[in-house]
Amino acid sequence: MTGKRKPRGPYRKGIERREQILDTALEVFSQHGDRGSSLQEIADRVGLTQAGVLHYFGSREELLLAILKRRDKLDSQVGEDVRSPGEAVTRTVRHNMEQSGLVKLFVALSAAAATDPVHHAHGYFADRYRELTGQIVRGLEQGQHSGQVRKDVQADHMARLLLAVSDGLQLQWLMDPSVDMVALVETFNQMCLAWAGPAEAEPAR
Amino acid sequence: MTGKRKPRGPYRKGIERREQILDTALEVFSQHGDRGSSLQEIADRVGLTQAGVLHYFGSREELLLAILKRRDKLDSQVGEDVRSPGEAVTRTVRHNMEQSGLVKLFVALSAAAATDPVHHAHGYFADRYRELTGQIVRGLEQGQHSGQVRKDVQADHMARLLLAVSDGLQLQWLMDPSVDMVALVETFNQMCLAWAGPAEAEPAR
Repeated sequence: MTGKRKPRGPYRKGIERREQILDTALEVFSQHGDRGSSLQEIADRVGLTQAGVLHYFGSREELLLAILKRRDKLDSQVGEDVRSPGEAVTRTVRHNMEQSGLVKLFVALSAAAATDPVHHAHGYFADRYRELTGQIVRGLEQGQHSGQVRKDVQADHMARLLLAVSDGLQLQWLMDPSVDMVALVETFNQMCLAWAGPAEAEPAR
Repeated sequence: MTGKRKPRGPYRKGIERREQILDTALEVFSQHGDRGSSLQEIADRVGLTQAGVLHYFGSREELLLAILKRRDKLDSQVGEDVRSPGEAVTRTVRHNMEQSGLVKLFVALSAAAATDPVHHAHGYFADRYRELTGQIVRGLEQGQHSGQVRKDVQADHMARLLLAVSDGLQLQWLMDPSVDMVALVETFNQMCLAWAGPAEAEPAR
């Protein structure tokens, strides 16, 4: 890898200002998602006009995408010290249950990108699934090697299924908030474990 | 249940005409999903104006919802002779891979309904998940009783996870058509099976 020089002067200030606006946008969206008044609320909080905010992103759509990218980055930092991919996803899902607005934003934007190959966020989501799948596969293969994760199922299948579970449960939870996404992801993680032996084959329910 | 009298005369004819339009709409949407020209194409095929078509449904949104309801009905008929809930979902997913337009319609409408509690289709999807979960739970509990399905995981958790897998994989497949939804659902079904004994614990990959 080639070394990156730190940006200086006005350019650096622009990047910092953009980051600050993104943090504010993340807060505004985390509770309510994309409302008609969201952009004005962000503008008010950072002391800019709506056009001033959008100047840093190009368009409203790019701002929404930047919010999701920012969340991904924060989630991946939170997940750095976990022991398994399943644990990382469980943490993210637990966090998501406190931020229904961001879940709504993800559901809306991923659906729009999936159903339209020329959508501005299509490439981002396609890359995201490919990269996350790769990361999870590496973690699961380590678990298979150490004997914790079952070996009769391919790691790349379990990885794709874990991501599908996480996305699919968001829909069910938004339709019915009594759906316990964390407990369900933990159950899926349990199903990925190596069989522990006859004594634990059929515990009482 | 009280007996239903068969509708007669003009009312019956209206119902038949609506069904005929729905069949045509299902065909038109199955390949391309919701395009700007879809309504005109349906109208042309059934010999009506666009307004004439909408007369039978109330609005464009209600037509879209009616198409998904129709598909659910057809899917449930196809699934009547299957041996397990997993097999039913596998069949539906295999069928879906030939009808990307309907998958897109489902993804778009379910996301819109999930992110907006007052969306006209919110109640339909909430009911759908509740009813499908109940059906799958009954099938899985039979499997647990007969020893085919693992008993160390609650049937209602496996049911919710199976639906989540099915929804979540649609997103991944639309982003990347090389994702094999059928193989992945079959892997999930395998993970729901009771452990078959040491001889099959770790087959060669």
